Amino acid sequence: MPAFDELRVFSGNAHPALAQTICEYLDIPMGQVEVFKFSNDNTFVRFQENVRQRDVFLVQPFAAPVNDRIMELLIMVDAARRASAGRITAVIPYYAYGRTDKKDQPRVPITARLVADLLTTAGADRVLTMDLHAGQIQGFFNIPVDELTALPLLSRYLKAKELPDPVVVAVDIGATKRARDMAAKLGAPLAIMEKRRVGNADRTETLNVIGEVQGRTAITVDDEIDTGGSLLSTIVALEERGVQDVYACCTHGVLSGGAAGRIQGSSVKELVISDTLPHADGSLYPKLIVLSVAPLLGEAIHRIHNGLSVGAMFE
Amino acid sequence: MPAFDELRVFSGNAHPALAQTICEYLDIPMGQVEVFKFSNDNTFVRFQENVRQRDVFLVQPFAAPVNDRIMELLIMVDAARRASAGRITAVIPYYAYGRTDKKDQPRVPITARLVADLLTTAGADRVLTMDLHAGQIQGFFNIPVDELTALPLLSRYLKAKELPDPVVVAVDIGATKRARDMAAKLGAPLAIMEKRRVGNADRTETLNVIGEVQGRTAITVDDEIDTGGSLLSTIVALEERGVQDVYACCTHGVLSGGAAGRIQGSSVKELVISDTLPHADGSLYPKLIVLSVAPLLGEAIHRIHNGLSVGAMFE
Amino acid sequence: MPAFDELRVFSGNAHPALAQTICEYLDIPMGQVEVFKFSNDNTFVRFQENVRQRDVFLVQPFAAPVNDRIMELLIMVDAARRASAGRITAVIPYYAYGRTDKKDQPRVPITARLVADLLTTAGADRVLTMDLHAGQIQGFFNIPVDELTALPLLSRYLKAKELPDPVVVAVDIGATKRARDMAAKLGAPLAIMEKRRVGNADRTETLNVIGEVQGRTAITVDDEIDTGGSLLSTIVALEERGVQDVYACCTHGVLSGGAAGRIQGSSVKELVISDTLPHADGSLYPKLIVLSVAPLLGEAIHRIHNGLSVGAMFE
Amino acid sequence: MPAFDELRVFSGNAHPALAQTICEYLDIPMGQVEVFKFSNDNTFVRFQENVRQRDVFLVQPFAAPVNDRIMELLIMVDAARRASAGRITAVIPYYAYGRTDKKDQPRVPITARLVADLLTTAGADRVLTMDLHAGQIQGFFNIPVDELTALPLLSRYLKAKELPDPVVVAVDIGATKRARDMAAKLGAPLAIMEKRRVGNADRTETLNVIGEVQGRTAITVDDEIDTGGSLLSTIVALEERGVQDVYACCTHGVLSGGAAGRIQGSSVKELVISDTLPHADGSLYPKLIVLSVAPLLGEAIHRIHNGLSVGAMFE
Amino acid sequence: MPAFDELRVFSGNAHPALAQTICEYLDIPMGQVEVFKFSNDNTFVRFQENVRQRDVFLVQPFAAPVNDRIMELLIMVDAARRASAGRITAVIPYYAYGRTDKKDQPRVPITARLVADLLTTAGADRVLTMDLHAGQIQGFFNIPVDELTALPLLSRYLKAKELPDPVVVAVDIGATKRARDMAAKLGAPLAIMEKRRVGNADRTETLNVIGEVQGRTAITVDDEIDTGGSLLSTIVALEERGVQDVYACCTHGVLSGGAAGRIQGSSVKELVISDTLPHADGSLYPKLIVLSVAPLLGEAIHRIHNGLSVGAMFE
Amino acid sequence: MPAFDELRVFSGNAHPALAQTICEYLDIPMGQVEVFKFSNDNTFVRFQENVRQRDVFLVQPFAAPVNDRIMELLIMVDAARRASAGRITAVIPYYAYGRTDKKDQPRVPITARLVADLLTTAGADRVLTMDLHAGQIQGFFNIPVDELTALPLLSRYLKAKELPDPVVVAVDIGATKRARDMAAKLGAPLAIMEKRRVGNADRTETLNVIGEVQGRTAITVDDEIDTGGSLLSTIVALEERGVQDVYACCTHGVLSGGAAGRIQGSSVKELVISDTLPHADGSLYPKLIVLSVAPLLGEAIHRIHNGLSVGAMFE
Repeated sequence: MPAFDELRVFSGNAHPALAQTICEYLDIPMGQVEVFKFSNDNTFVRFQENVRQRDVFLVQPFAAPVNDRIMELLIMVDAARRASAGRITAVIPYYAYGRTDKKDQPRVPITARLVADLLTTAGADRVLTMDLHAGQIQGFFNIPVDELTALPLLSRYLKAKELPDPVVVAVDIGATKRARDMAAKLGAPLAIMEKRRVGNADRTETLNVIGEVQGRTAITVDDEIDTGGSLLSTIVALEERGVQDVYACCTHGVLSGGAAGRIQGSSVKELVISDTLPHADGSLYPKLIVLSVAPLLGEAIHRIHNGLSVGAMFE
Repeated sequence: MPAFDELRVFSGNAHPALAQTICEYLDIPMGQVEVFKFSNDNTFVRFQENVRQRDVFLVQPFAAPVNDRIMELLIMVDAARRASAGRITAVIPYYAYGRTDKKDQPRVPITARLVADLLTTAGADRVLTMDLHAGQIQGFFNIPVDELTALPLLSRYLKAKELPDPVVVAVDIGATKRARDMAAKLGAPLAIMEKRRVGNADRTETLNVIGEVQGRTAITVDDEIDTGGSLLSTIVALEERGVQDVYACCTHGVLSGGAAGRIQGSSVKELVISDTLPHADGSLYPKLIVLSVAPLLGEAIHRIHNGLSVGAMFE
Repeated sequence: MPAFDELRVFSGNAHPALAQTICEYLDIPMGQVEVFKFSNDNTFVRFQENVRQRDVFLVQPFAAPVNDRIMELLIMVDAARRASAGRITAVIPYYAYGRTDKKDQPRVPITARLVADLLTTAGADRVLTMDLHAGQIQGFFNIPVDELTALPLLSRYLKAKELPDPVVVAVDIGATKRARDMAAKLGAPLAIMEKRRVGNADRTETLNVIGEVQGRTAITVDDEIDTGGSLLSTIVALEERGVQDVYACCTHGVLSGGAAGRIQGSSVKELVISDTLPHADGSLYPKLIVLSVAPLLGEAIHRIHNGLSVGAMFE
Repeated sequence: MPAFDELRVFSGNAHPALAQTICEYLDIPMGQVEVFKFSNDNTFVRFQENVRQRDVFLVQPFAAPVNDRIMELLIMVDAARRASAGRITAVIPYYAYGRTDKKDQPRVPITARLVADLLTTAGADRVLTMDLHAGQIQGFFNIPVDELTALPLLSRYLKAKELPDPVVVAVDIGATKRARDMAAKLGAPLAIMEKRRVGNADRTETLNVIGEVQGRTAITVDDEIDTGGSLLSTIVALEERGVQDVYACCTHGVLSGGAAGRIQGSSVKELVISDTLPHADGSLYPKLIVLSVAPLLGEAIHRIHNGLSVGAMFE
Repeated sequence: MPAFDELRVFSGNAHPALAQTICEYLDIPMGQVEVFKFSNDNTFVRFQENVRQRDVFLVQPFAAPVNDRIMELLIMVDAARRASAGRITAVIPYYAYGRTDKKDQPRVPITARLVADLLTTAGADRVLTMDLHAGQIQGFFNIPVDELTALPLLSRYLKAKELPDPVVVAVDIGATKRARDMAAKLGAPLAIMEKRRVGNADRTETLNVIGEVQGRTAITVDDEIDTGGSLLSTIVALEERGVQDVYACCTHGVLSGGAAGRIQGSSVKELVISDTLPHADGSLYPKLIVLSVAPLLGEAIHRIHNGLSVGAMFE
Repeated sequence: MPAFDELRVFSGNAHPALAQTICEYLDIPMGQVEVFKFSNDNTFVRFQENVRQRDVFLVQPFAAPVNDRIMELLIMVDAARRASAGRITAVIPYYAYGRTDKKDQPRVPITARLVADLLTTAGADRVLTMDLHAGQIQGFFNIPVDELTALPLLSRYLKAKELPDPVVVAVDIGATKRARDMAAKLGAPLAIMEKRRVGNADRTETLNVIGEVQGRTAITVDDEIDTGGSLLSTIVALEERGVQDVYACCTHGVLSGGAAGRIQGSSVKELVISDTLPHADGSLYPKLIVLSVAPLLGEAIHRIHNGLSVGAMFE
């Protein structure tokens, strides 16, 4: 039995196509809302239908321009709360600022926590997200968080390719856990890239490969790929160590600053990502394989609205 | 006696020149801080000097790009708080979103309140600002707010010009109170522009002038000028009513989308503004007179740091 | 579908007659509650029926004695919350302290914000109110506020009178927006009263009329009328400027200290107000026309309880 | 060493004479503040001197009219906080609503907790109070509370009288602990009055005396005396049990509704109270002995301001 | 109509037998949850069934080891909240730390308030408890508290024994109110034990009996019995004053450190307690009469879940 | 200049010896406080000296019994706050529950966040801790956290041994980052242990070594060692891969359930830990090398008290 009145899904400006596909999965029309900027660069929001007592889901991955997308979502939450929404779920398929999740040097922020507090302050009741940079970010929230993962989606696709002698490669120390989970799903061994400074000259770095990769098909894993720089140097290092082919995958294809083009031009066979973020026309980059998370998000919204277990989706 | 250790003033990216002038007034060096974006469009902040127990002032008007400037300030506050700053004052000479301060239609946000809450959540202890769009915005905060006004600065400049037969004109209903205050300072009468829709066709508007302006020198008053559209149509309407000359003034020169050029090209004699917001090279727009609020802000910071009355600055 | 169990409406001591009329509109019995003072002047409250999980509305305009009425409401909210009410809506047709909504001089309170915080602290979940002194007061709350307006009620009444050559007059600068809205509804021009100090002697004031009123029927507008002093001096000034007749209207008839009598004795034709506040027997003051807001409040309560749009009432 | 800038003591309207005596003890001038009502019955507050960074003490017992005194104090706290007071201590020698400190029947408030929350919400940093109705009320606050007691003051006075064969009498079950403490100080035995309903008729009550009182001098103890009704019936019951003389004492002389006159007319020898509340001219009621708590409060304020132990005052 | 989805009752490790009996009363199966410690002494909790939108009741009296039981409950609440429970009621039949409810000496905690805040912070929405040490502890919470009492259960049992010439005895000053209530229910007079220090030597104490007990059957009353020391010395003192027989009763049988054995070995006839706390096998202590509160708690849970009055259970 | 009055350091019951050594470093006497349990298993705290306005540091690592130690600290904080401490820093050299920092399965708690919230609720103003299980736990707090690390202490000790051909080994995937940092400090390569389930039978696990270890001296790294089980199986696996010798190190020697004896009996050469937790007499376990963190903590307290940079300690 639904705990709240009618389910309504609205989209900010970050990724309307994803929200649209989610609505199709749920077989409901998209909610009507305006999100735009006045000439003075102030963002404005107006819900164009009644949200009173409704179970409101606001779909907004934190795509670039990131700060705009965050502020848009906060303002949408404020408007929905003041319009007496029954419950407000922030659906954030990609949670930016995930890498600013600890103080690893003095006098820096923990922006991932800050953004969690901002969402709570604005009035969000819950969060639905995917593949956070670190699991601990769930603990930055005190409102309930449902975190989905695209890992099964990616691993099913890669498994179906029946790649010969696969080895899963963490692109850096931070990606080790995620790579290990992928390796377990594929029944493949694990290797890890380690960047190390050499000598007194602070700038020189070597990239060590820890583990056996010789003659194997490498599958690199990370949560997100930004400029692609780490991936490209990983490919070089792996090839120097005698790797056969390299496939890359990640959940969040940030792909800033021409990354898609650079990766297309590299020796990687495929880069498998999801559509948590909007991407340019895929036809330009045939190596870019985009798998949709809309059914996952749609099913989770359905379960949240109806009080069904979300954890059961991954058992 | 100072209530807190050493005074430190830092600037975000919005308006370093203003922060620099404030530091010169205070005769202290600018604080060292980095505020920049990573390639993934995430803003990062790092204080490059100890702020522990310091009395920290962060100067950041909400200039365009507005959402970036707000997020920068929030992240600076978070970093300062986690670095054990003794007290954090957000110095916001121009507070954007001031016009979204009430629900004048259903299902819209009150973003001016939301931003106040975001600042408090991030950890700001106090706010120093200038000429808020509405005085009630002070009440959106529960932390102490010191609001300065540039009105005496503007009126002293205008008074010194000894304009013949001046009349102060509110450019719309909302500016009436501010115009009345200016009129009182100049000993001039008051007139008010009123926009009114005509007939059934929703788009046609007339601009009424309430009050006597014939043969006088009009001085239009507003808190901010954005595109300049209202000002330009006010000038036309005033000239139709036989005004001699028009001078315009406001505290915050937002001047978006080529406004400075359009105003330069109009029949206005001068547009007198302050430097709460950064402006392009003034030599292009000789009609644009920019008065500096840095001494006002510097003096207020001095008084806040030393427990002296700020109100006494305006008595 | 109602989001909460059974709707219950209770009244504090401020205005039981209004609560009774609202219940009649809703066709439900008044809720049973005792609100009284012990001999030691402590207010006490006891709900005399089960409110567990009920959708509780507490009707209490902030009539004089204002502080008693506020404390009564806070204590009622506390008792309802501790008795496990499902949702508590403070119905405050007249919100006192609205004029203390900003710091226009040093070291004064913003009591309108303070009272908003007190209500939230006590445990109110929402507020239903009418014609706040300033729209920004909505932003003093973070709980949802539904603000109704009596302006259409007043303007319909005045329009029906078909007054000749009407001009709407704001009784002071602060009432300009409200007067403009009334003027638009009546299709009448606008004029504004401006109080100005003269010369060095601080006490002498003149009352300017900005706009054309000669030979017209003036309709003065304000949100509330307290002692009636401003209204009476406005009438004098308008008559000096050749006004034909004066009608006055406002939403909240505070009418303190014999104001009703003084207005009855003036040359005003009618003073049209609403019953957001209780009034003495109208037969004594035939010029006092009281229009009831009970149907508006009743309809809003019905819509809030059932998750229907309240905004739609004013479209 | 003082933790905060200059000490300042201000008084609300409840009991300026007490605040004045405290200032004399501290050898500082009274702080300048206006607290008054506008014609619309709204309370207004204006500090007439700089309070920035000052260590502000606001003296306001919750005397009748109780709700006005509470609201006055809340508004003073709001104004002081917004004026950047360094620390705000609410000095509440008599805390009203102390008897509404638990739910002893369904659907009633716990107003003593509510008022504690209101003070915290307004912005009080600490509380200084005397002889709370129940010690647990300290736990209603999360800000630090210093609770002083007038018991030593009262017992020293009574001990000096060298009354023959004294017995300390709790006027009801609730006063037992306080009476026991007084009995221990005087080295006297304890007796307790118990009110009991008789038979089915709910109204008939008997007043039992538990303990030996025959031939003794009874000293009745309570935290406050309101109408004096309990005291008067206690006197009658004690005399029926052969008591020699009755002396009464309490900290807070509420004395509502002509209580002072009724007690003066009774057979009680003396009623010893403190000046936590203002009283009418004592010359009318020679049996009323008023001992001043100003030195206690002054000393506590001195110690709070200077970081000295307050507990040490009572060791 | 139930306000929340399906009712679920879970038990921590404190008293599963009580939770089981409550579930039998409610005719529902016990909820599945694991609560255990890892080898590093960290408590862990895992709900083994979906609790999304469920109306969750967590049964956990604060039995010894007290801090473990409190932390277990807090962690259960955290897990339930993060698992999106619809509403979480902490069912705490025995609330420990009740005697640390005020500052009766300098620099001590008010742990009863602290624990209330911890529960709220963890995410409890309501509390269901029994016979708090002081009624004011309800006011330590701002979430709704339903406090049941075992007094009618105990008094019905004792009344049925038709004891000759009963007198109800408060075992110390603090138990006076509770004893008075029991005395009223039994139609018996009241006596009170008073501990008093004698002379200068701080250690010597006498135990006075205030009231008539000679030749009567004494029924001692307290909220809890811990080591039984007070009870045993009360029995001695009562027997010295010629009491016939002594019966003891209390709600919470803490019975620490061999108390049950010592009481069994004393001259008391019976000790009547409830099962708010788990007890060792009763067959060893035939004088220990344990009455079950499970029906009371079960009925209260039923009423809370269904929005029925809980107060009505005691009318 | 110290921001607060006199520095005072108090110890709970977890590790008084560490607190004592810290006080010796600071050259101040230990603060006087009692922390004990009543017979009813309730913890009680009493500060035996004035803490008003003092800069209070409470030293309490979360050693076993963990829940008792946490509750003791919370109660100490509550008592210090209510006693008007100027600032309260919780010094928690070992933060338990660090491994419960994310939801890696449905319906489990995030206890590391919960405990952070409990500390804030009790009233802690800051935290000083060492080597958190994950850096993100800093982000679970909104109060400032200073996190020290024992890594330099451990690495200096190990470097001085000049072990031949060292390789640093992460004992599991989760320890990779910490091992990488140690490897960088020692200029040694990195290897990683990976546990993997084999085949369909869920129970069989293999322990893979990723990286080269043959013929080298392995130095295993982790943040804490509990039962030592992982360490012992790591040693076996490393020896199977031809490792020469194994040295183990970690910051926190939890060493539960006879771990010290088991490790002493293993082929490990040394286990190097710190004294963040209390340990049994070291003479029984000669392989156990305990390095003291007291100078680190003492220096950090000195710097926090005096507003000096703590980050500078590690530059």
